[in-house]
Amino acid sequence: MYTEIRREAYEANIALPKQGLINLTFGNASAVDRDRAVFAIKPSGVDYADLTPGNMVIVDFEGNIVEGNLRPSSDTPTHRRLFLAFEEIGGVVHTHSTRATAFAQAGRAIPNFGTTHADYFYGEIPVTRKMTPEEIASAYEWETGNVIVERFKDLNPLDFPAVLVNRHAPFTWGKTVAKAVEVAVAVECIADMALSSLQLEPGLKPIEQELLDKHFLRKHGATAYYGQPE
Amino acid sequence: MYTEIRREAYEANIALPKQGLINLTFGNASAVDRDRAVFAIKPSGVDYADLTPGNMVIVDFEGNIVEGNLRPSSDTPTHRRLFLAFEEIGGVVHTHSTRATAFAQAGRAIPNFGTTHADYFYGEIPVTRKMTPEEIASAYEWETGNVIVERFKDLNPLDFPAVLVNRHAPFTWGKTVAKAVEVAVAVECIADMALSSLQLEPGLKPIEQELLDKHFLRKHGATAYYGQPE
Amino acid sequence: MYTEIRREAYEANIALPKQGLINLTFGNASAVDRDRAVFAIKPSGVDYADLTPGNMVIVDFEGNIVEGNLRPSSDTPTHRRLFLAFEEIGGVVHTHSTRATAFAQAGRAIPNFGTTHADYFYGEIPVTRKMTPEEIASAYEWETGNVIVERFKDLNPLDFPAVLVNRHAPFTWGKTVAKAVEVAVAVECIADMALSSLQLEPGLKPIEQELLDKHFLRKHGATAYYGQPE
Amino acid sequence: MYTEIRREAYEANIALPKQGLINLTFGNASAVDRDRAVFAIKPSGVDYADLTPGNMVIVDFEGNIVEGNLRPSSDTPTHRRLFLAFEEIGGVVHTHSTRATAFAQAGRAIPNFGTTHADYFYGEIPVTRKMTPEEIASAYEWETGNVIVERFKDLNPLDFPAVLVNRHAPFTWGKTVAKAVEVAVAVECIADMALSSLQLEPGLKPIEQELLDKHFLRKHGATAYYGQPE
Repeated sequence: MYTEIRREAYEANIALPKQGLINLTFGNASAVDRDRAVFAIKPSGVDYADLTPGNMVIVDFEGNIVEGNLRPSSDTPTHRRLFLAFEEIGGVVHTHSTRATAFAQAGRAIPNFGTTHADYFYGEIPVTRKMTPEEIASAYEWETGNVIVERFKDLNPLDFPAVLVNRHAPFTWGKTVAKAVEVAVAVECIADMALSSLQLEPGLKPIEQELLDKHFLRKHGATAYYGQPE
Repeated sequence: MYTEIRREAYEANIALPKQGLINLTFGNASAVDRDRAVFAIKPSGVDYADLTPGNMVIVDFEGNIVEGNLRPSSDTPTHRRLFLAFEEIGGVVHTHSTRATAFAQAGRAIPNFGTTHADYFYGEIPVTRKMTPEEIASAYEWETGNVIVERFKDLNPLDFPAVLVNRHAPFTWGKTVAKAVEVAVAVECIADMALSSLQLEPGLKPIEQELLDKHFLRKHGATAYYGQPE
Repeated sequence: MYTEIRREAYEANIALPKQGLINLTFGNASAVDRDRAVFAIKPSGVDYADLTPGNMVIVDFEGNIVEGNLRPSSDTPTHRRLFLAFEEIGGVVHTHSTRATAFAQAGRAIPNFGTTHADYFYGEIPVTRKMTPEEIASAYEWETGNVIVERFKDLNPLDFPAVLVNRHAPFTWGKTVAKAVEVAVAVECIADMALSSLQLEPGLKPIEQELLDKHFLRKHGATAYYGQPE
Repeated sequence: MYTEIRREAYEANIALPKQGLINLTFGNASAVDRDRAVFAIKPSGVDYADLTPGNMVIVDFEGNIVEGNLRPSSDTPTHRRLFLAFEEIGGVVHTHSTRATAFAQAGRAIPNFGTTHADYFYGEIPVTRKMTPEEIASAYEWETGNVIVERFKDLNPLDFPAVLVNRHAPFTWGKTVAKAVEVAVAVECIADMALSSLQLEPGLKPIEQELLDKHFLRKHGATAYYGQPE
């Protein structure tokens, strides 16, 4: 019944270490089935080498385990919060990729310095505020989702398909979980470029609006002309 | 009829991710057939794993698709502009390689700090001026080629076989597209070295003219003695 | 008789270059058998490609070779000192991994800047004081162990499963040597992230106590809920 | 007749790209036969994939080609100069490895900041003075050897088995060319660590003399105890 999201979640999870985005077991991916209101997610603390479509855990939108003998990722409530808030997304990815995490630890958004960035994001990659002691002490992973949603109250999640959680690391998403993996690769690459650009020019200004518009819009929206017709 | 340039363009395109120059689908390579006034170029937004000589797109010097069922790379007008302006080149490569792109984002030429650089370039790796809102709003990719050509009005493209497009990324070229790939590898390596040298000595001066002459000219021109006789 | 610790030590040693933690022969791993009061350790100066479970050297807690035709690692007395002082550990790993060693050379602890770090360490990764000329001139490798033990007089080794030896490099440990390898991977990753965060914010403050508590304690101790039930 | 040095030089040359020390064709290795007063060296500008023991070029101490149909490396006179001046060495390696070259470009010796460095070098990794216009204009590669030899007039080449040629890149050597490859790996690793340590502490002082003595001398000379008895 959940064959398709099991396969999608599995493929996304095993792509993360192959792409160099994951050390050890830092990270997880999930794929949603909107019709059935469930998602498939990595089991907690399991080595990537031991993953199979069959051991993905199926969780519903209230957080109940629908199928699976293993505990789901401890970050499951964050994924769930994002699926509830961002109705247009089909998958979520969380990594601790090195350069993006360096920005998150410093509480800094990743400035949009060039067209590589503008091909994916319609502005900077936002960072959340720090979580309060109360949020941390209560339903921590759910509240992690809440600070992300709060940061996006004036942002379109498909125009900004990633966030840095302050002191923590990036979350990315997309229409499919495969797209969320692609964005996770882009975020790490963009963070690395931005760090080097900042070494060269500590006060570097963001990309000009007209160039941002051009690059973002040639890949996204009604006037896109990049890639093949769908 | 276009077998040779299809093969050359294909081999150059698949070399880019193997050399670590490309993440995702950021980049493309093209090979020209001067006699027939056409070039073969990567189709737009296609995964490197799915490329074949047969799906390279054949485009003429007016920008018409001569052969191919897929859209050519969105950067095709930039390649075309370069083939028209630089008559001695046989191939063009575009990457978003990380360190070179960091210089491009910062609007900084890559200074010539040592013999690794001098083996390939007869001076700094130049950067274009920023494009105007008008250039961006009109035929953007063609105008990208124009700002490159403008930057080269007093430079020999074979003495300076690469450029950084401001806010964007490097383009490289050569007598063959295979050579353009080699230059793309060199540009990334040189950019990485230059960043580290600048960390050590923020005010580092460029290489002395006599050493630049020696290294560039032992590999290029009438007095070259590097490599095997051709 | 020592089959199990030979196998564990062998697997840990060969994991080090696979994980990118070791260049040349800089590093070693050991596994202890508490019941027999012996440990298995890498032979000195032997290539990782030539290791086998059979050529691990078995050493007792007084430093005598119990089994083996090869000299044990020159760092053996340091491992022995740690097994004697930290009774809860089952394995020790020593690497010269690049970013962690950069902190050790500078005599700097690795500050705890985010949750990646907090998942493994209940605070900064400590650095020892410099060794005195007398310590260096006497039983150097044993004294290396002594300065580590001195640094841990008020620290729980399982809450802080790594140390940087000043001017030298990291040592890590864990309940098993496989866990010590995992920590060694984490230390290098955390060091790399911290260096980049410090580039962004030279005066960056450590992680807030409540977030440290949350992340460390969700993985360790009585209230842990990360991973699968054991 | 030159089977042994052909094999040694071949194995050393192909090890360089495998170790990540070489991009493109930047680099070369040579092995000497002191009895016959000849050395085997890489042919110039040939891809590493096309090397065989048979296409190594045999050159005598006056610079004549004794065997071989290809031109030897353009750096051959530098290797020859070193074999003549440093009688105790059996092989020479030249790379443009990234971080070491960054120091060379900046004209900076690599300071000895820790025991990784002290295991290989009895002090900093020296840098030559800049070459004069006259030296560059005359027998450039031979003069490159001369500035190295000049820098070593008070240094023992086996205590300092590498040098950075100013504005250029490292040369390393050893009793065998295999050892020179090992040193080349160490130099790149040490340079990378030193750059990161300098980011943390721009005014970092070199390692204390007593620790330098300890580490260098436990691996070298009459009192060495690292590794297995020979």
